[in-house]
Amino acid sequence: MLANETKIVPRYNETDQMGVIYHSNYFVWFEVGRTDYLKNFSMSYKDMEEMGVMLPVIEVGCKYKSSAKYADNLVISTNIESLTPVRIKFNYVIKREGDNVFIAEGFTEHVFASTQNGKPINLKKRYENLYNLLENIVIGEGR
Amino acid sequence: MLANETKIVPRYNETDQMGVIYHSNYFVWFEVGRTDYLKNFSMSYKDMEEMGVMLPVIEVGCKYKSSAKYADNLVISTNIESLTPVRIKFNYVIKREGDNVFIAEGFTEHVFASTQNGKPINLKKRYENLYNLLENIVIGEGR
Amino acid sequence: MLANETKIVPRYNETDQMGVIYHSNYFVWFEVGRTDYLKNFSMSYKDMEEMGVMLPVIEVGCKYKSSAKYADNLVISTNIESLTPVRIKFNYVIKREGDNVFIAEGFTEHVFASTQNGKPINLKKRYENLYNLLENIVIGEGR
Amino acid sequence: MLANETKIVPRYNETDQMGVIYHSNYFVWFEVGRTDYLKNFSMSYKDMEEMGVMLPVIEVGCKYKSSAKYADNLVISTNIESLTPVRIKFNYVIKREGDNVFIAEGFTEHVFASTQNGKPINLKKRYENLYNLLENIVIGEGR
Repeated sequence: MLANETKIVPRYNETDQMGVIYHSNYFVWFEVGRTDYLKNFSMSYKDMEEMGVMLPVIEVGCKYKSSAKYADNLVISTNIESLTPVRIKFNYVIKREGDNVFIAEGFTEHVFASTQNGKPINLKKRYENLYNLLENIVIGEGR
Repeated sequence: MLANETKIVPRYNETDQMGVIYHSNYFVWFEVGRTDYLKNFSMSYKDMEEMGVMLPVIEVGCKYKSSAKYADNLVISTNIESLTPVRIKFNYVIKREGDNVFIAEGFTEHVFASTQNGKPINLKKRYENLYNLLENIVIGEGR
Repeated sequence: MLANETKIVPRYNETDQMGVIYHSNYFVWFEVGRTDYLKNFSMSYKDMEEMGVMLPVIEVGCKYKSSAKYADNLVISTNIESLTPVRIKFNYVIKREGDNVFIAEGFTEHVFASTQNGKPINLKKRYENLYNLLENIVIGEGR
Repeated sequence: MLANETKIVPRYNETDQMGVIYHSNYFVWFEVGRTDYLKNFSMSYKDMEEMGVMLPVIEVGCKYKSSAKYADNLVISTNIESLTPVRIKFNYVIKREGDNVFIAEGFTEHVFASTQNGKPINLKKRYENLYNLLENIVIGEGR
């Protein structure tokens, strides 16, 4: 499997009065990592939506190990954990550059759905090329 | 003109590491005030969008007088400052309940646009009933 | 165990271009539910922080069943799932009022930490009264 | 005066159900531009806060010309519009790369304040070196 690294610098509005990054923002960063991953290895998410496919989230989780802070230099490593014709699951690891401190790890699981009506679709049947691109990433051949 | 009061309690994620509410969140609260105002005096914004009208923002401003803090009890007073067939401008005053401290004042100006294509519309020509409802608010008769 | 219900109306900024509420916002709502719960059954989170105790998040999760939409009337039921002298775990169920549609369920797990230095503390040893208040909720007696 | 360019790619959570970027997010981007500007031409905002100076916002404004969309490639040009010993005002222009479409322009005005007590300070008196750095930018010599 291929991993993709994305740099993130936490923004001031993402801090809270504890002086650290508010926890829900990590899921926004996961999306930035996912967007970057799809663009680099398969097809940009923007193009997917224009083609008619979207990836609504069905489950997420995150474990927080060390606090991210304003203006940190962070790196998100994104990976596809599993893929079926109807679902895709990504995982993410966030570390701080320089000292390599482990900040957090998490996952997001998605169904493939139609942008027309929001209903789930079988990606392998409906968009075989895209499915094959994703499957090739998962079996480690990439594009 | 009628003013509408909306209560807001700042959320933890809206704080920043200065220990106060991050400034862009005031515009989110203005939208809560505006939503509440439209619902009480004319037609809910949700119903407007379903009817085909949306209110994209063309200009905003805010002056910050005193910091809002987590768990404060705030009151937003919303008002329509001006109305033409193609534009509407709201203003907002935020005070803290209890001691009545003046927190901020601001405005948002919007065009009327079609949800079909995003293009500006003449509300008076296209949706005369809604325009009349809004005009009646402005001339102080309300609904 | 006591459950606490909190009403939430999704805000326009919380929507995304899929036309539904962006998934990370559910964790913001969980915090609103948690804040409300603590205020009603033990001590407000604001007072806790002023006393020196904060609740940094160590793990969260959420399963999304049905999409929340702009201007929905939602109800969050918050509960304490487990409590030890060093940790507390809340769970949350979000339903739509009226038709009672199940929207999402999730959890957040926290350590007790000092606002002085951010380090974990044993709440039972350091703030026995607060710990007892929370324990009484868990064993179902409430305050 | 020196201008600084910062690249921004709008995130999915920043979109709303109109299919464009929600207006309050532009102020978050202005902060990203301002942060980048200060880091490149004077002293990073993080270092300023550690030294004891913060820049709370006293007034902001933004005019929206064309909608920013998800995954656009945007460029923010940040500039200092005015500087006194007690206040600093930045302005910002956002354009889309490639076709150079004008997206928005805005400003933020700040006081210099102490991180110790939140009170306004005279930067020229209290932190003359930082004030001189900023003044040199404004008179066009930069660093």
